[in-house]
Amino acid sequence: MAYFQSKPTAGRHFLQIPGPSNVPDRVLRAMDNPTMDHRGPDFGLFGKQLLEKVKQVFKTEQPVIIYPASGTGAWEAALVNTLSPGDTVLMCETGQFAFLWREMAERLGLKPELIQTDWRRAADVPGIEARLRADTAHAIKAVCVVHNETSTGCTSRIAEVRAAMDATGHPALLLVDTISSLGSMDYRHDEWGVDVTVSGSQKGLMLPPGLSFNAVSEKALKASEGAKLPRSFWDWKPMIASNATGYFPYTPATNMLYALDTALDLLLAEGLENVFARHDRHAEATRRAVRAWGLEVQCEDPRHYSSVLTAVRLPEGHSANALRAAILEKFNMSLGNGLGRLNDRVFRIGHLGDFNDLALMGTLSGVEMGLRIAGVPHKEGGVKAAMDYLSGNA
Amino acid sequence: MAYFQSKPTAGRHFLQIPGPSNVPDRVLRAMDNPTMDHRGPDFGLFGKQLLEKVKQVFKTEQPVIIYPASGTGAWEAALVNTLSPGDTVLMCETGQFAFLWREMAERLGLKPELIQTDWRRAADVPGIEARLRADTAHAIKAVCVVHNETSTGCTSRIAEVRAAMDATGHPALLLVDTISSLGSMDYRHDEWGVDVTVSGSQKGLMLPPGLSFNAVSEKALKASEGAKLPRSFWDWKPMIASNATGYFPYTPATNMLYALDTALDLLLAEGLENVFARHDRHAEATRRAVRAWGLEVQCEDPRHYSSVLTAVRLPEGHSANALRAAILEKFNMSLGNGLGRLNDRVFRIGHLGDFNDLALMGTLSGVEMGLRIAGVPHKEGGVKAAMDYLSGNA
Amino acid sequence: MAYFQSKPTAGRHFLQIPGPSNVPDRVLRAMDNPTMDHRGPDFGLFGKQLLEKVKQVFKTEQPVIIYPASGTGAWEAALVNTLSPGDTVLMCETGQFAFLWREMAERLGLKPELIQTDWRRAADVPGIEARLRADTAHAIKAVCVVHNETSTGCTSRIAEVRAAMDATGHPALLLVDTISSLGSMDYRHDEWGVDVTVSGSQKGLMLPPGLSFNAVSEKALKASEGAKLPRSFWDWKPMIASNATGYFPYTPATNMLYALDTALDLLLAEGLENVFARHDRHAEATRRAVRAWGLEVQCEDPRHYSSVLTAVRLPEGHSANALRAAILEKFNMSLGNGLGRLNDRVFRIGHLGDFNDLALMGTLSGVEMGLRIAGVPHKEGGVKAAMDYLSGNA
Amino acid sequence: MAYFQSKPTAGRHFLQIPGPSNVPDRVLRAMDNPTMDHRGPDFGLFGKQLLEKVKQVFKTEQPVIIYPASGTGAWEAALVNTLSPGDTVLMCETGQFAFLWREMAERLGLKPELIQTDWRRAADVPGIEARLRADTAHAIKAVCVVHNETSTGCTSRIAEVRAAMDATGHPALLLVDTISSLGSMDYRHDEWGVDVTVSGSQKGLMLPPGLSFNAVSEKALKASEGAKLPRSFWDWKPMIASNATGYFPYTPATNMLYALDTALDLLLAEGLENVFARHDRHAEATRRAVRAWGLEVQCEDPRHYSSVLTAVRLPEGHSANALRAAILEKFNMSLGNGLGRLNDRVFRIGHLGDFNDLALMGTLSGVEMGLRIAGVPHKEGGVKAAMDYLSGNA
Repeated sequence: MAYFQSKPTAGRHFLQIPGPSNVPDRVLRAMDNPTMDHRGPDFGLFGKQLLEKVKQVFKTEQPVIIYPASGTGAWEAALVNTLSPGDTVLMCETGQFAFLWREMAERLGLKPELIQTDWRRAADVPGIEARLRADTAHAIKAVCVVHNETSTGCTSRIAEVRAAMDATGHPALLLVDTISSLGSMDYRHDEWGVDVTVSGSQKGLMLPPGLSFNAVSEKALKASEGAKLPRSFWDWKPMIASNATGYFPYTPATNMLYALDTALDLLLAEGLENVFARHDRHAEATRRAVRAWGLEVQCEDPRHYSSVLTAVRLPEGHSANALRAAILEKFNMSLGNGLGRLNDRVFRIGHLGDFNDLALMGTLSGVEMGLRIAGVPHKEGGVKAAMDYLSGNA
Repeated sequence: MAYFQSKPTAGRHFLQIPGPSNVPDRVLRAMDNPTMDHRGPDFGLFGKQLLEKVKQVFKTEQPVIIYPASGTGAWEAALVNTLSPGDTVLMCETGQFAFLWREMAERLGLKPELIQTDWRRAADVPGIEARLRADTAHAIKAVCVVHNETSTGCTSRIAEVRAAMDATGHPALLLVDTISSLGSMDYRHDEWGVDVTVSGSQKGLMLPPGLSFNAVSEKALKASEGAKLPRSFWDWKPMIASNATGYFPYTPATNMLYALDTALDLLLAEGLENVFARHDRHAEATRRAVRAWGLEVQCEDPRHYSSVLTAVRLPEGHSANALRAAILEKFNMSLGNGLGRLNDRVFRIGHLGDFNDLALMGTLSGVEMGLRIAGVPHKEGGVKAAMDYLSGNA
Repeated sequence: MAYFQSKPTAGRHFLQIPGPSNVPDRVLRAMDNPTMDHRGPDFGLFGKQLLEKVKQVFKTEQPVIIYPASGTGAWEAALVNTLSPGDTVLMCETGQFAFLWREMAERLGLKPELIQTDWRRAADVPGIEARLRADTAHAIKAVCVVHNETSTGCTSRIAEVRAAMDATGHPALLLVDTISSLGSMDYRHDEWGVDVTVSGSQKGLMLPPGLSFNAVSEKALKASEGAKLPRSFWDWKPMIASNATGYFPYTPATNMLYALDTALDLLLAEGLENVFARHDRHAEATRRAVRAWGLEVQCEDPRHYSSVLTAVRLPEGHSANALRAAILEKFNMSLGNGLGRLNDRVFRIGHLGDFNDLALMGTLSGVEMGLRIAGVPHKEGGVKAAMDYLSGNA
Repeated sequence: MAYFQSKPTAGRHFLQIPGPSNVPDRVLRAMDNPTMDHRGPDFGLFGKQLLEKVKQVFKTEQPVIIYPASGTGAWEAALVNTLSPGDTVLMCETGQFAFLWREMAERLGLKPELIQTDWRRAADVPGIEARLRADTAHAIKAVCVVHNETSTGCTSRIAEVRAAMDATGHPALLLVDTISSLGSMDYRHDEWGVDVTVSGSQKGLMLPPGLSFNAVSEKALKASEGAKLPRSFWDWKPMIASNATGYFPYTPATNMLYALDTALDLLLAEGLENVFARHDRHAEATRRAVRAWGLEVQCEDPRHYSSVLTAVRLPEGHSANALRAAILEKFNMSLGNGLGRLNDRVFRIGHLGDFNDLALMGTLSGVEMGLRIAGVPHKEGGVKAAMDYLSGNA
């Protein structure tokens, strides 16, 4: 039984939403250590090594800011530190999270311009390039891209976005949301020339929600000096100043930092490349299951497949929410709902974080049995297809 | 990652041995509360309610002794409290655990007489009856039966044993080992007229190993007055005297008692009958998978099927241990090994404790993929058969 | 040993800073339960009862917003939801935290006007009244008061502030920071007519840092409709809308909410009035110790004494930081440093949260031994004075 | 609040009985890791390093048996492995635990001969020597000594016992109970020539109760070959055989082994000699407090002072139990009761395990305030005397 449950159930809940992901037992046990003095000498030592260690997962040598706040806050931080009221930002509406980020930009007084997709592929790189080329006045101050669009399971190719931007010579900043990809899929803040990488704790980093991140390039730091959006809590400057000695300008989420420290140790012990390969493998197994069921993966472009989650489309006339409710009721598994315009049209399978082959097989079995129970037309054999793949690549 | 691991792995280990079973998170968190004063007033209140509560799972109104020791100790306790050096005890060699209990009886100076089986069925009830009838001198002081033989997956029918004993009018005590069945399969200490029920913490009770139990009938108590085997740690008398006020004669395993208290709350919240039905269902699904693979269940008599574990025979010339090693290596799942004469001939799937449908499907998928990888001849379709059954009975 | 320690030490660290406070074992164990689906049906039930329960500690019937962010963020939330760029806010510089709040107001584009104190008393109520009376044009949009000034140990009398404001008929909002008082000292959001109560998790609520709060009056809600400071993460509106069904507009800090739920249960089980009386008693014992040592309490006005912490002034020429370092080194206790202009002049003893008489005596003994070791001129007898008081009022 | 409490209290309970001692948070968190397969390959690796590591705390190169049972069981193990029915054992009745061990010896069919003390000093070494010299027939098979008598706070000088035995040339085995001393006071199984060292988890080893130990000399092993007391659960032979590869003959208390592993790491990180010095220091501070109160330490011989606990005698006509009840009620501290003939005459202060100066000061303050509240005649100044000592030796 979980902390709160309306009815008793045996065994572990299958939390197969695309985040919060399953938190390793060791991380939970790190988090429940007694809170320490965040101004004492030991905290400085702890903070310093942690602020260094966290850079590895961003693949950066530049500062990574850790906020005692959930991921949405780190979106806001990226915007308010680099932009001024009325600035134009170019955003790619790859799905619901890109949509929400745009909404936030508007509320903060920015002018988001949207490159839309059909929510079945990732960011439109040629579209970005074309728009930037057209912006000869350099009105656009930033390009905002969601790396892994959690609502659709499409992953944008950030290196290609960067190359396209470079090709135009446009000076806009590149802000990338990796909330649901960092620690699960390859990501390279420095090599890909990202200016602000936004991230959160509760997905690939295998933590509960409550921490978020901004990795910051030199160019972004420079932009922040002239940026006029009001900011205080999110302000990078005092953060970076305090972080130099391992401290924070205001009370950090101490226990979440313990959890982060342990989660990073686990990821680095497994090896980031191994972690990514594991996610790729589970994603491929899942897509094979979906195809075997005769269902459609929401993401249409194989180059954009997400290794973090798979959104599955239901046949017309069938309710994804009814399916999810049946699976939760009968099999004690939570799947992700369709968000925004995909509500009731797709369900999303999270296969990220602290996860392994047999947990994936439990997950896919639950979906296959759920399809049957909920009366969703499908072919059997999804589970078998996944087993074929996994056992062939064990 | 677990507390100790020689190489890092992601996700939760699948601990599908037939005990220790998976311990619910809540129970682990109960156990890690600070140790309390076992002689203070609060302990008396705590102990008293716990000693009452634990009776429910034995279905008894009589005393249940809780030892701060693992299950093997409770076997010894049952013998040394009721018997005298040189006493004959009738034992049914249903498998390895019955064999070990017999070995213990011998070491303690008793004379075990054995009714053997082929390790493919549970206790031979007519055999017991015949032997008792022949014992007109009442040399046999106790009949010892393992309720659920963990090495074979055969469950003895205790009510029938009792009826057979009653039919003979023989005064022998009935001692029953429920270490691997209590809290997973129906068991009724009082109604079935058992004199000593031996049990342990780490199976159906969903605790780590470290506690064990004797439920004691009035007849057993009376026998203990004349029993001459030396005893001190295991002695019921000071236990029962102290327990009257909720205390123990020597230091109890306090934190394990917290765990027991919470585990009982979970079992009673789910409802014992629901818990049993859940185990029955998972066992049936497992057997269907085994048959679909074209493999043989070790237990040959359907009336003796265990709901706690299924022992699966490997085709001649194939090694169960090699299969288990492959599954551990590739899929991070522990299965039970064949014990004693079944070593390398069977593997055992535990489907007990804090367990649910999707964890079972992960388990069976791991076995099916393992059979393939290890090159064990089998048919596909075991996982499908289990899904058919589970989704048809969800 | 704690999660991170540069050298091994035995026993529990004495964390006697004025927050983060000591977190009860039960709360730590609640927090480390597996993360749940924040969009699933159980979360709604959990969230709803929690959002109701938390109101009790604010003594309000009005909405309480819970942010997945630390306390500083809730300051920002109070400002950006109610004010517009250039608005004048009247602030009382009672100490460092009032100073920092003012700094934040400035950064956000507000015009803070300051009523200063000598940092040895709480908010100047007649000063507020006079200033409001003078503001016939109603340029002042809000009065910001820190209830318990953590840097000085002075507690402002909010009911008197309210009365003074009412007496003037001035329409300014009353914003109160209770980050270090809520759950430790009496506080009444509704009865005292506060418009926004700002709070945090890591002090009287006995949680790790990482949650913060805004309790919001109808008047504040109305003000938020016209407030023009940009806001998104902190925006009350979507929060209140989602909270109606127990959910949150973006991912909440799930595990911290478990901790909050358990901490509230503990506070309510003890009884809020008992909790307050306990804090009052420990504060009085501490002040008696300080006086017996011949040292001075930073707070000069007994009506403003804080029950949460006591700031102690060092004799001229002696370093509070050297004292604190000696106590940390020799006695494994963290005390609060002097902040801002009080740096090195005072040390602060936290006596809040999950705390009791003997932990206080350990704390005061550590201070008395530290004074001796660090060569700070003082009289002995502080510990004795505290014992006299505590045993006389046990 | 603890796991079970009849009324809510704030802060941590002061568990100052002489064991179970306070368990470090890290040890509790180790113990609550998921149970692992005790027959899998990782367990062998884990077990092997643990069985080596544990030897360090016994200062032995010889086998240390770990029982999944509490300390009383290890007493029984020492006797049944080395002795035969009717064997004479020489025991020193230093207090209640020696008395109970003797009672156990009797129940097991041995013939204990007693050298009595007045319970105010440790084992009578000349008495042992004289008795052995008189036993020219070598009827005495073992000498049983309690190293630290937990009921009186007297510590026997084992090296002197050994020397006395050696002086006589008597071949009896030396069995020593270190349940309440190991890990707190210097102890040297090999150097002191002990044959069986009995110990338990819940005192100096800083674990919950539930594990116990026999460290075994070659001579003891040899004796076990001819020893005729029936044994099975406690039998060394299969233990030592299994332990060679890191495994156990029956299910070990897995989670307690995690706790042991972590506790040993903590003790070794602090350094055993530092651990002993810490205990000595706290014991001396406590005795100074007792003397300053004008009360008497139960142990009369300074060479026998225990560093683990101090038993304090009450003035005639005053009830130690009433004092303890008042302290528990008013100050949430558990102290040890007087055992056996000392019931109500003494109370016992445990100052062992995971403990430090300020926790000791909280403890002594609680006693001093309790004496006052309970109306026990005493002088003030005990707490001051302890502070004088501790701050003079910080």
